[in-house]
Amino acid sequence: MNFGKYENCIEACHVCAAYCDKCATECLKEDDVKMMAECIRLNMQCAQICRLAASFMAQESEFAHEICRLCADICKKCGDECEKHDASHCQECAQACHRCAEECAAMAS
Amino acid sequence: MNFGKYENCIEACHVCAAYCDKCATECLKEDDVKMMAECIRLNMQCAQICRLAASFMAQESEFAHEICRLCADICKKCGDECEKHDASHCQECAQACHRCAEECAAMAS
Amino acid sequence: MNFGKYENCIEACHVCAAYCDKCATECLKEDDVKMMAECIRLNMQCAQICRLAASFMAQESEFAHEICRLCADICKKCGDECEKHDASHCQECAQACHRCAEECAAMAS
Amino acid sequence: MNFGKYENCIEACHVCAAYCDKCATECLKEDDVKMMAECIRLNMQCAQICRLAASFMAQESEFAHEICRLCADICKKCGDECEKHDASHCQECAQACHRCAEECAAMAS
Repeated sequence: MNFGKYENCIEACHVCAAYCDKCATECLKEDDVKMMAECIRLNMQCAQICRLAASFMAQESEFAHEICRLCADICKKCGDECEKHDASHCQECAQACHRCAEECAAMAS
Repeated sequence: MNFGKYENCIEACHVCAAYCDKCATECLKEDDVKMMAECIRLNMQCAQICRLAASFMAQESEFAHEICRLCADICKKCGDECEKHDASHCQECAQACHRCAEECAAMAS
Repeated sequence: MNFGKYENCIEACHVCAAYCDKCATECLKEDDVKMMAECIRLNMQCAQICRLAASFMAQESEFAHEICRLCADICKKCGDECEKHDASHCQECAQACHRCAEECAAMAS
Repeated sequence: MNFGKYENCIEACHVCAAYCDKCATECLKEDDVKMMAECIRLNMQCAQICRLAASFMAQESEFAHEICRLCADICKKCGDECEKHDASHCQECAQACHRCAEECAAMAS
C-alpha cells in the first residue's frame, strides 16, 4: 500500500477487524459460550470501529485522529478481554487488538 | 494473518477499500472534479462492499460467496473507470480494484 | 424522509439493523447463551447487510437491487431463527427481519 | 422502534446517513461539481459515523456517548457546509445533519 504516515495504522486496523470478526464467530462455537459473552460483545464493537478508523485515515479526514483515539480505547479493552481466554482465536485476536491499540494511540497523539 | 482459504481475498478487499477511499478523496481535490464524478461515485460503493465482503469472509458466513460475487462486479466496474484517468491515485486504485475483482471472482466460483 | 420508491425499504433496513444489534446484545446477556448462538451469529450479519443495503439505495446505486436480493435472504434466515426464541428482543427482531425481508424482496424483483 | 432513551438519536442518525448518501450522489450530478466537493467529502464521512453511532447505541455500548460526541461534531460541520448550497438535496441534508447533531450532542452530554 501507499498511505504515507497512515500506512501501518490502516493495516493494523484492518487486521484487527478481521481477527475480531473471526474471534466472535469462533467464540460462538465454543462449548461454554457464556464464558465468551463479554469477548463477543467487544469483538463486535472493535471490528466496527477499526474499519471506520481505517476508512477515515484513508480519506485523510480531519477527524481521523479523534476516531483513532477512541479506536485505541476499544481495542485495548477488547484485547484485554481476549487475552484472558486460552483459545487460539482469542490469543491471536488479543495480539491484533493490542498492536492496533498501540498504532492508534500513536496516531492520535 | 491466519485466515486459511480466505486470507488473500480478505487482504485484497481491505487494500481495495483503502485505495477507493483515498481515490475518492484525491479526485475531489482535482481541478476538473466533474471529469472524476463517475470515479468518485463508484469508489464510494466499492469501498463499502469490499469492507463488508472482508467481514463476511472473516466470519466464515454462508453468504460470503454471494457477497464476493457482487463485490467482484463492483470492483470490476470501479477499476475500469479508474483506469481511464491518468492521476496516480486512479491508476493505483485501478490496480487494487482489478486484483480484488479477481480474488473475489475466484472466491465466488 | 424523501426517498421516493426506496423510502419504505431504506426505513425497514435501518429498523432491522437496529433490532439485530439490540438482539445480539440482549442474547449475550441471557442465562443460556449457547442456545442463542445461532441467533447472535445471524444478527451480526443481518445488521451489516441491512445498513449496506440502505446506503446503496440512498445512493441510487445500480447494484441496489442485487444487494436487496441478498439482504432479503439474510433477513429471512435471521428472522426465522429469532422467531424460535420467546425472549421479547428475539420476537421484536423477528418481526423487523421479516418486514425487511419482504421490502427487500419486493425491491429486488 | 423500542429503544428507550436511544430511540430518537438512533432514528436521527439513520435519517442523516441516508440524506448524506443521497446528497453526495446528487452533488456528483451537478454541473459545477467542484463547488460541491467539500459537501461531498463531508457527506461521505458523516454517513459513515452516523451509521456507526446508531449501531453502538442499539448495542448499548459503553462507548456510545463518545461516538455520539464525535458524530455531533461531524454532523455540525457537514450541515454547515450543506446549508451554503441552494440545491434541495443540500438543504434537506443540512436539516437532517443539524437535527442529528443536536440529538447526538444531547446524548453525549
